[in-house]
Amino acid sequence: MSNKKRPYPTATFAAVKWHTGILTLLDQRQLPGEVVYLEHDSATAVAASIKAMVVRGAPAIGIAAAYAVVLAARSAYQSATTSWRTACVAEIALLTEARPTAVNLQWAVATMCKAFNAIAGDPEPVLLNLARQIQDDDVVANHAMGRLGAALLAPASGVVTHCNAGALATGGYGTALGVIRTAFKNGTIAKVFVSETRPWFQGARLTSWELQQDKIPVQLVIDAAIASLMGNGEIDWLIVGADRIAANGDVANKIGTYAHAVSACYHGVKVMVVAPSSTVDMTTASGADIPIENRAATEITAYKTIQIAPNDIAASNPAFDITPAKLVDVIVTEKGIIQAPDAEKMLAMFG
Amino acid sequence: MSNKKRPYPTATFAAVKWHTGILTLLDQRQLPGEVVYLEHDSATAVAASIKAMVVRGAPAIGIAAAYAVVLAARSAYQSATTSWRTACVAEIALLTEARPTAVNLQWAVATMCKAFNAIAGDPEPVLLNLARQIQDDDVVANHAMGRLGAALLAPASGVVTHCNAGALATGGYGTALGVIRTAFKNGTIAKVFVSETRPWFQGARLTSWELQQDKIPVQLVIDAAIASLMGNGEIDWLIVGADRIAANGDVANKIGTYAHAVSACYHGVKVMVVAPSSTVDMTTASGADIPIENRAATEITAYKTIQIAPNDIAASNPAFDITPAKLVDVIVTEKGIIQAPDAEKMLAMFG
Repeated sequence: MSNKKRPYPTATFAAVKWHTGILTLLDQRQLPGEVVYLEHDSATAVAASIKAMVVRGAPAIGIAAAYAVVLAARSAYQSATTSWRTACVAEIALLTEARPTAVNLQWAVATMCKAFNAIAGDPEPVLLNLARQIQDDDVVANHAMGRLGAALLAPASGVVTHCNAGALATGGYGTALGVIRTAFKNGTIAKVFVSETRPWFQGARLTSWELQQDKIPVQLVIDAAIASLMGNGEIDWLIVGADRIAANGDVANKIGTYAHAVSACYHGVKVMVVAPSSTVDMTTASGADIPIENRAATEITAYKTIQIAPNDIAASNPAFDITPAKLVDVIVTEKGIIQAPDAEKMLAMFG
Repeated sequence: MSNKKRPYPTATFAAVKWHTGILTLLDQRQLPGEVVYLEHDSATAVAASIKAMVVRGAPAIGIAAAYAVVLAARSAYQSATTSWRTACVAEIALLTEARPTAVNLQWAVATMCKAFNAIAGDPEPVLLNLARQIQDDDVVANHAMGRLGAALLAPASGVVTHCNAGALATGGYGTALGVIRTAFKNGTIAKVFVSETRPWFQGARLTSWELQQDKIPVQLVIDAAIASLMGNGEIDWLIVGADRIAANGDVANKIGTYAHAVSACYHGVKVMVVAPSSTVDMTTASGADIPIENRAATEITAYKTIQIAPNDIAASNPAFDITPAKLVDVIVTEKGIIQAPDAEKMLAMFG
């Protein structure tokens, strides 16, 4: 294990951690009730954990996948020293197919695979360094975005965030929560509202928990109450992460983001999308081209062991929605901010 | 027990039922998993059940309260034959305070109490007839509203309803669901979407179940997915009930109604509010004057026995929100419909 220092102090919890040749993922399905770490020694196991949402959040999924490529290459090298590159193709395909919407997954796997050709001998040390670099870069990017985004907030701002775009969803610190953390330190935040984020309750379970660890006061509400809060003038900014940003600035993010953005538009509340440049996909022209994952109806009709809706009721469970660029006031990446995003401004920064 | 026929066939389930001197309430907290009827022989017990949401839905609460007044008067008459009117004052006050937002509760209790003076001897038979009349009138009103509202739908309409404004929320048949039932019979409905309605899941638990009994196909979605469905052009009408309609046409209804109405406005989807005239409160000038019930944070931070959010997280849990008249396309009552409601039109119909 490398003793290389992280560029910033990491939180006491780590969503994704490589230790003594094992990839440890904090099981986010159990939070906040239980803090359980699951160990993974194969890419197949990591792919299953990504699919099952042990780890979630676009950047964190990408980082976990990067380490999973290390596991795939190591396993392939053990069984096929000279042809490990082809021996790990199937496992790597499994990884990239684990979830369709977050582009960071494809980006991280592609970044790792690009390094294959230059490797001589055991691939593990080289690939491990690269995976660590991806994680470290993400944390650095989060802090940069935190500064850029927080600078946009006027004093005494009321903010709301949806889902979890925090340390748990990234290499550490967070995208939307990175902005909120920095702004809170700067003293410009009056109040943080968190929408619970059905059906997985990432807002209630994860964001509340993260902010509580940082002693940032939060007010939890159901998703459908955000519009009323905006109507009452309690919110100045909707601040969210992203799972993919298309070339025209359209944003795929957790289902409900679009609802909140429409409400923000109606009430004159500003919308900030915070995501590392690895979330930008210039090969996807617009939101209409982003694949939206449909998950099992049972995630809506039951909660854990408790049945909610009648058996055999039809339920539609898209995990994401598309917020068109025209509803976004500013996109914040570590490369800079884009106000009123459109295809031209996106091309200028990411082309 | 009276053998008087109900004006329309009632559903196989009954939210509120008087039988052999006992008020039976279907415990809606247990649906759809278990069909449990709770028996009440005192107004105090009914008040507790209203507060605890054994029975919910503005008209059903009013009907349950009307029968509870019978119980209060009977008990008072047994202990104080000549002064029963004053002996039941405390129990009746308990009833009216059980929940603050739905005006049908106050309306039903006031309607019952107005009959007190003309009663000679045992009050039970007279009051029981009056309570039955309130329930029967509500069912008749529901069917009238069903016809009026359904007539507004063009063929192949996509509709969404929030919470439960069905047979379970009324004397039978339903307000919003009465319109949907009638329109479905008329063949003008292409698809019914139901928003699950956090935190009590009335949409998932009750509306899905009711429509399933009637073999009306439904698609259940989370509340925050409604905006996306509207954006995709799948919805023509948002059809909801109401807990109170103010003199200017502002509507108090289940939290989330405002969010959906804002989204409807943004997408050009029409908004229909369906409620009996007992829900109209001409003494409340506007939505700003309607008291909004705040319920316990634990309804959000946990679901039944499962903890969701961290302990001691602050959560705000308003049970209702206000949809201003300008976002409502039509109010349907048994007295007729009001397009683009305002104070003048409300006064003309309800003054």
